[in-house]
Amino acid sequence: MNFSSDNAYGVWPEMLAALERAASGPAPSYGADALTARVEAEFGRVFARPVKAFPVISGTAANALSIATLCPSHGAVFCHAEAHIAVDECGAPEFFTHGAKLVGVEGEHGMLVPAELEAALSHFQKGFVHHAQPAVLSLTQSTELGTIYTPAEVAALATVAHAHGMKVHMDGARFGNALASLGVSAAAATWAAGVDVLSFGATKNGAMGAEAVIFFHAADVRDFEYRRKKAGHLVSKMRFVSAQLEAYLEEDRWLARAAHANRLAQRLADGLSGIDGVELAHPVDANAVFPWLPDALVKRLREGGAEFYDWGPPAGGRTLVRLVTSFATPEADVDAFVALAKG
Amino acid sequence: MNFSSDNAYGVWPEMLAALERAASGPAPSYGADALTARVEAEFGRVFARPVKAFPVISGTAANALSIATLCPSHGAVFCHAEAHIAVDECGAPEFFTHGAKLVGVEGEHGMLVPAELEAALSHFQKGFVHHAQPAVLSLTQSTELGTIYTPAEVAALATVAHAHGMKVHMDGARFGNALASLGVSAAAATWAAGVDVLSFGATKNGAMGAEAVIFFHAADVRDFEYRRKKAGHLVSKMRFVSAQLEAYLEEDRWLARAAHANRLAQRLADGLSGIDGVELAHPVDANAVFPWLPDALVKRLREGGAEFYDWGPPAGGRTLVRLVTSFATPEADVDAFVALAKG
Amino acid sequence: MNFSSDNAYGVWPEMLAALERAASGPAPSYGADALTARVEAEFGRVFARPVKAFPVISGTAANALSIATLCPSHGAVFCHAEAHIAVDECGAPEFFTHGAKLVGVEGEHGMLVPAELEAALSHFQKGFVHHAQPAVLSLTQSTELGTIYTPAEVAALATVAHAHGMKVHMDGARFGNALASLGVSAAAATWAAGVDVLSFGATKNGAMGAEAVIFFHAADVRDFEYRRKKAGHLVSKMRFVSAQLEAYLEEDRWLARAAHANRLAQRLADGLSGIDGVELAHPVDANAVFPWLPDALVKRLREGGAEFYDWGPPAGGRTLVRLVTSFATPEADVDAFVALAKG
Amino acid sequence: MNFSSDNAYGVWPEMLAALERAASGPAPSYGADALTARVEAEFGRVFARPVKAFPVISGTAANALSIATLCPSHGAVFCHAEAHIAVDECGAPEFFTHGAKLVGVEGEHGMLVPAELEAALSHFQKGFVHHAQPAVLSLTQSTELGTIYTPAEVAALATVAHAHGMKVHMDGARFGNALASLGVSAAAATWAAGVDVLSFGATKNGAMGAEAVIFFHAADVRDFEYRRKKAGHLVSKMRFVSAQLEAYLEEDRWLARAAHANRLAQRLADGLSGIDGVELAHPVDANAVFPWLPDALVKRLREGGAEFYDWGPPAGGRTLVRLVTSFATPEADVDAFVALAKG
Repeated sequence: MNFSSDNAYGVWPEMLAALERAASGPAPSYGADALTARVEAEFGRVFARPVKAFPVISGTAANALSIATLCPSHGAVFCHAEAHIAVDECGAPEFFTHGAKLVGVEGEHGMLVPAELEAALSHFQKGFVHHAQPAVLSLTQSTELGTIYTPAEVAALATVAHAHGMKVHMDGARFGNALASLGVSAAAATWAAGVDVLSFGATKNGAMGAEAVIFFHAADVRDFEYRRKKAGHLVSKMRFVSAQLEAYLEEDRWLARAAHANRLAQRLADGLSGIDGVELAHPVDANAVFPWLPDALVKRLREGGAEFYDWGPPAGGRTLVRLVTSFATPEADVDAFVALAKG
Repeated sequence: MNFSSDNAYGVWPEMLAALERAASGPAPSYGADALTARVEAEFGRVFARPVKAFPVISGTAANALSIATLCPSHGAVFCHAEAHIAVDECGAPEFFTHGAKLVGVEGEHGMLVPAELEAALSHFQKGFVHHAQPAVLSLTQSTELGTIYTPAEVAALATVAHAHGMKVHMDGARFGNALASLGVSAAAATWAAGVDVLSFGATKNGAMGAEAVIFFHAADVRDFEYRRKKAGHLVSKMRFVSAQLEAYLEEDRWLARAAHANRLAQRLADGLSGIDGVELAHPVDANAVFPWLPDALVKRLREGGAEFYDWGPPAGGRTLVRLVTSFATPEADVDAFVALAKG
Repeated sequence: MNFSSDNAYGVWPEMLAALERAASGPAPSYGADALTARVEAEFGRVFARPVKAFPVISGTAANALSIATLCPSHGAVFCHAEAHIAVDECGAPEFFTHGAKLVGVEGEHGMLVPAELEAALSHFQKGFVHHAQPAVLSLTQSTELGTIYTPAEVAALATVAHAHGMKVHMDGARFGNALASLGVSAAAATWAAGVDVLSFGATKNGAMGAEAVIFFHAADVRDFEYRRKKAGHLVSKMRFVSAQLEAYLEEDRWLARAAHANRLAQRLADGLSGIDGVELAHPVDANAVFPWLPDALVKRLREGGAEFYDWGPPAGGRTLVRLVTSFATPEADVDAFVALAKG
Repeated sequence: MNFSSDNAYGVWPEMLAALERAASGPAPSYGADALTARVEAEFGRVFARPVKAFPVISGTAANALSIATLCPSHGAVFCHAEAHIAVDECGAPEFFTHGAKLVGVEGEHGMLVPAELEAALSHFQKGFVHHAQPAVLSLTQSTELGTIYTPAEVAALATVAHAHGMKVHMDGARFGNALASLGVSAAAATWAAGVDVLSFGATKNGAMGAEAVIFFHAADVRDFEYRRKKAGHLVSKMRFVSAQLEAYLEEDRWLARAAHANRLAQRLADGLSGIDGVELAHPVDANAVFPWLPDALVKRLREGGAEFYDWGPPAGGRTLVRLVTSFATPEADVDAFVALAKG
């Protein structure tokens, strides 16, 4: 019963098959291979417009490289106060930007809203050399708290950002889960709503280690390729990263697998919601459930073999925990967990 | 006939098998898994002493992270003027160190010698705040020009470095080729000769994307793990990098495969050496051959399907080219190339 | 009637005299001169213990260099959410630390309190590689809002910081104003209360451009001198910066001049407090007054020749403004301002 | 007899007078004052075209900030192998550029020539992501070895640089000495010869601490002002830096004072050239003399009270030393030194 993270699970069989297919014979290195070109075209199909797509091997790299490309050292990046880039990347965006400032904005359920974004922006005077200059808005989709922005919500925030001359980045480490839940097109969820660059995650949803930075406007690419190289993220045998991305996109497999994870999260939430003393802290839109659990129950679940993270210190006899489901989480694990919780 | 680079070739079948074995079920992420622990122990066996070993996914990452751990921003890194870190990583060490200085030292056949190292060091006044402070000596083994340092040569250079308070880094992107050629123990070639930290490469010799930073002295690790995280190089599904390293080391497979590449390079060199107008620029110690070829021959070889890089502009009717053999280069390709060269 | 900032005023006559005295003949450059040594000794007298003191030419340099010396790239610096280092230095600490994270903590009247500091710290897991690691607590004395920490308040915060393994930095751009107001010894206000390093400001209180970074513990100096050089802050004719600092400290002139500024701020506050619609937002402990003024009054004052900054956008018919007095503010200006305000 | 450096001397009386004039009353801070605006206009007059001029307080700051503005992190800066930026700034350009690469090019007497610049450039493949990209050519005028480029020589080098898409920076820490010696207009020596940005030094030639970054093309300013702020180099009481620059330029005083230094260097060279065992290593174009002196003579001169630096270790019984004259060096010191040398 592993609900610790979606990255705790392995990879799809299709990934292994794709790697094997890609493995034979020589090919140009550093991304000049045919497979990498094909993947970029394939992303164009998925997003219904030409894109520039660059494979990398970690979500932190995707986020930090794309943000640094859009944000100068004297810039500021606005994100939710609990965003992954703000709290869980050890300051990677600050390193890659050479010291830009991350501005954490509060918002219920891990979601930004235009009013609070505007309020945060009001403290930064445009052209005033003493202030970091707003450069990027970064949205996480799905959010760190398992919620999802509708295209309209994204658009409202992007409108604010663009009005302030900022670019819009989306951290899509769980973009598949978001899109599977939203049921709209990839285009509608991103560039049509104002997203300029997307960290497209595949690892959490079943790849081995494959993400893509997707620029929806070629002019935004700027010096991205030099940055990727200089950061040690231009891998020599790129075809093996691209092979994963191709297998990921093929037959919209990524959406089907994400839908499985989402469904199990919903099942878990449903199972827990009737239990005495259990309260869901956030809506369950994607593949994560954040219940408050009585401390005794937390203890019992762990003794019963359940793995999950506390999401804060115990408070008043109960603890907020995070339960994440994945493409490979067995439905039986969900049911066993709920049964254990019911006691 | 692909002699462009050893990273142009795919991966061993054993790599794919290892990935498949590692793929099932959940496991702790970010390197807390059992496989990663096992690999560190295995490196201890290979190097005949306890080591700290950290998997990463590119040689540039291995070099830049390990050098940055040992070299402050105000430090200087001494390396051969043609070292990979100096010319082919787009300034990655400078980025990771936040602006340390790389000092390129000349030396025949891509190899440093103590006298020239001492001469270079003499321009840096110790404790003088205007001068970058010598912090790291970085040796490439095998070198960019296909030559190899003997343990005695490494020791002589390390002695100079240590006498100046510097640490010794070895860029072992092709360490397997070097060791297979030297025929000494991994210990003798590294820490016993004064190497403090090793970028242990597996990718060029048959892994998919797996290198390890190996610290021979635990105290040198310092803040390496934070640096790796902050640079986006702590991958979540680390077990798949570790699985490659395990398969690489198992049954000393890495040495056998490297020996194949070395043998073919020798065969290539032997085949070429008798040809009129062909001259080898450097000794062939590992898996690279650097012949001067008449320009007409270069043209004919490429028209015949041979792939390889020029190693400088044409000069006096001939061009220096680089031919690299790999674990998977067919012997027939070598023979075909030589036959084509003989005309 | 210039209340825009204390740095809007010129310099003391004693500064000019000191510069003139220092101007003749040759002297060692880059701080090796006798005057610079004398100033360090003089700081030892002022703080009643041996210190390491390094002159620099701007407050931003003093803060960023001292913080960077104490905080690694993967570290976090805790400060008040409205601290100068957080909002008015364009991300200088982030640049000098190569991407450390500034954590803004709320607190009434610009002052941190232990409970909120502890709360902020609770989100950073020690030794957890994904989290920036708490490294420095930075206190501003007097604060950006004109308030002052008592030695007991500093000690309470420093105790928390030290318990978490952090160092304590004090941004003393207006340290003279604080000390003159507190009426305790320089020692009591700093190291005896747990401060490890102090940005000792002289510019705002009458120097031309002179600050000193004062380390109370020699071991904390680490590589500060290389950092200062590498950042272009080791000036060649250092004696002229030191001359200012010497004149500043001589005969405790700095405290007398700061007391003048403080007294005028008090007089200004007293004069304003009786006026209808005027409300002081913060206690007036040093040389700054933060009144809410009716918008019509703001307009009238500016038309009458008063210079000052708004401290936020108009809100409900009134605006928070900042009035700063300096060593050279004429008492008549204060009285004229109050008279104008009274209408 | 202090020939250690031109920055060992004090300041002109006119500097002190200018500071005193600037000292009274309030003025806008951070460079918004009238004096700073006036200085920019004055630079326009001196260079016979509109310029953007930014005062800073150290030569290292001027160089590092201007170079960083023109050179991305993945860029390369070409300069003479013995340039100040390469050897005497502890890697400041690398820090400010976030890790760009300085490429030291050899050349007789501290001077670059087009052929060697072209040769160095030939190792950097344009658009090749593995190579740092040539971005800036930095020339020192006068050079570290006391020689001077003619406008034609500058133009020849600038033509190469521009043809490669690079910008041309001139480190003019001793620009006054160079111009006084050349006897051409400031325009002819700089922008008319292809210089894009100039570090205009005043400190070594008699200011207290004042340099200016002069952009000859407004478009090159880019984010310079944010960089200056973020590096702690935007001083609050800027008028005092500007006052020095105004006094420096007034009545072409800077050229007259530099001419004095140059004349004494010439006198020193003439006096030494007849002495047995003494050999001048470089032409004496500006205010520095580099003689080889017999070791016994070096000893005798120092015992006689002469101060100067060795410019390398003793070699074959003699040592290369550097003798620098300044605006304030007494002619009697030169004569005494020569007399002492003659024995």
